[in-house]
Amino acid sequence: MSEILKLNSPAVFIGKQGQDGVISFGSGQPDLPPPPEAFAGINLKRDLRYGLIQGEVALREALSHEYPGSTAENFVITNGASEALDLIFRSWGKGGKVLLPRPYYYSYPPIIEMAGMVPVYTDMIEGRIDLEDFKKKVKECKAVLINSPSNPTGRVESIETLKEIERITQELGIYVVSDEVYKDLIYERENYHIKGDHVITVNSFSKTYCMCGVRVGYLWSSDKTVVENVCEEKTHTSMNTNLVGQDMALHAMKAPKEYIKKQQLIWRERRDFIYQGLLSLGFELWRPEGAFYVLPKCHNARKFLSVLFQDYKVIAYLGEWFGAPDRLRFSYALDVKQIEEGLNRIRDAMKKVSVL
Amino acid sequence: MSEILKLNSPAVFIGKQGQDGVISFGSGQPDLPPPPEAFAGINLKRDLRYGLIQGEVALREALSHEYPGSTAENFVITNGASEALDLIFRSWGKGGKVLLPRPYYYSYPPIIEMAGMVPVYTDMIEGRIDLEDFKKKVKECKAVLINSPSNPTGRVESIETLKEIERITQELGIYVVSDEVYKDLIYERENYHIKGDHVITVNSFSKTYCMCGVRVGYLWSSDKTVVENVCEEKTHTSMNTNLVGQDMALHAMKAPKEYIKKQQLIWRERRDFIYQGLLSLGFELWRPEGAFYVLPKCHNARKFLSVLFQDYKVIAYLGEWFGAPDRLRFSYALDVKQIEEGLNRIRDAMKKVSVL
Repeated sequence: MSEILKLNSPAVFIGKQGQDGVISFGSGQPDLPPPPEAFAGINLKRDLRYGLIQGEVALREALSHEYPGSTAENFVITNGASEALDLIFRSWGKGGKVLLPRPYYYSYPPIIEMAGMVPVYTDMIEGRIDLEDFKKKVKECKAVLINSPSNPTGRVESIETLKEIERITQELGIYVVSDEVYKDLIYERENYHIKGDHVITVNSFSKTYCMCGVRVGYLWSSDKTVVENVCEEKTHTSMNTNLVGQDMALHAMKAPKEYIKKQQLIWRERRDFIYQGLLSLGFELWRPEGAFYVLPKCHNARKFLSVLFQDYKVIAYLGEWFGAPDRLRFSYALDVKQIEEGLNRIRDAMKKVSVL
Repeated sequence: MSEILKLNSPAVFIGKQGQDGVISFGSGQPDLPPPPEAFAGINLKRDLRYGLIQGEVALREALSHEYPGSTAENFVITNGASEALDLIFRSWGKGGKVLLPRPYYYSYPPIIEMAGMVPVYTDMIEGRIDLEDFKKKVKECKAVLINSPSNPTGRVESIETLKEIERITQELGIYVVSDEVYKDLIYERENYHIKGDHVITVNSFSKTYCMCGVRVGYLWSSDKTVVENVCEEKTHTSMNTNLVGQDMALHAMKAPKEYIKKQQLIWRERRDFIYQGLLSLGFELWRPEGAFYVLPKCHNARKFLSVLFQDYKVIAYLGEWFGAPDRLRFSYALDVKQIEEGLNRIRDAMKKVSVL
């Protein structure tokens, strides 16, 4: 039997996800290539002096067509969605509570805490926000951070829930930060963007256009003060976002709608395959409605993860990193053949550890 | 006579530096193109999934040859030197004082303050560190931030001063953050890199290779904990630095040494021209020894800046943004013809405002 790995964070698997024979359900990023449009016509010999802190005008204008009633002034282009989140919370200064549905994306608590704010948790029911608990706890908070479709639950909030959150927070004058990086990876319905002058939307080109390593994200806000404060900070902390990356993002947006639809079909097939596979192995789990994660219950999760990796070369992430102890997160950004092989190995590993 | 502009920060000139007929001594960035090597052989269709948070191994290995006794493990690649500085100070958490020679680069105080630390100032003498005052004040500090060649003074610290700072801080166990982004733009002598396990060097490809907008910088430290803490933070705040930018930086390093030497000749000619020009107009100023800034004394600086911009289409920056009231900062990242025209306009403007 394997020794239990030191499982503090996903960092334990760094550099191991691409190794020979390893099947990784770990890192949350598309395995598919970007659209060809992302490369076509990019001129590296462009003016490479400092760009605008807020981001290139052409990119912000292109984005404004995706956000009705917006102009380029409503956007700030950032080094991925991560930097957008970091700058937003830092701009509010020290103190104040932030309501966070749990399970959460693992960077949320450190980002909030590094900004000197305090996360307050509301536990989800079946992977979705519990509105009753949300309403109770939101009153003491300065802001709320939501993420639908969700990493790590794979769930999508109902339009009714999103509208109710819009309404309550507007009434209380509380900011909602809506991390919508999986907005185009949604299988059940059209996405619903929450709106309002107290809403700050965070988004990215990483998942939709399969370009995580290019690190181009953005925030949208109709509140001029939010945009100005974020730009003022970014002037000191990183200046403009990489100009070549911004060009690639702008070009990627020229990909036909078909590109996104085709991706959705691929993701849906994988979703069905892993969901059915884990169900038939006896796991209890929520059916993913968006993004590319499943979060099954799993007893002895740490021990199982060690065995999976050391004896079967399978990588998964611990639910506890996402505030979900006794669960595992599997990313299904793998082709169906690999998912199948991974499920076979999981079946074998289940003979060594009691997980159900 | 012009109305006085609202001169809170360089932001007042954003978007105006490239306008027709404007001569800008404002923004501090090379006007020359990057070396052709920066573009040759770049493959945009490379793997664009997440890269290592610490930065691409090939780039860190190439850098290790510039830092004797180093390996790739001593570096973290960042979104420009700005992000390196931001992450370093944030990694020390709240509280603690940082000694800062004044005049300083205008982002230093906000970066230190946003990290919850407190800047303590030591006033320079003739644009260089006053070692006596430095020694008195350093004892109460957790860290020191130095910048030689300096923005905005254009001065280079003597090797004796740098060695003395090395020695004192080593003895007291105080970190020195050494911002050396102008290390290759130095006219008087070879650069001297301060060393030691309490030294953190911050550097960039922006100035040496004229690629400010690509935003690739890095930090060097022999202290494993510093590197680990910065990477842990960056995992949450921005993840890997743009992969295409890192490729361009790696390729730029293949430029022959001649490229850097040729640049130095151009900068030196400009330095001589603007220094003599401002002297002959009667300004009192320090002779720049590196970087590309002069910081002459100027009475009625705010009024003069308004007149210069509104009546003569000349941009300069206020010394007070850099902790130097009653001075102006001129960046000479302009060809000599433009510097000449700018000086002529300054001569005319001096008839309207009493500046000497």
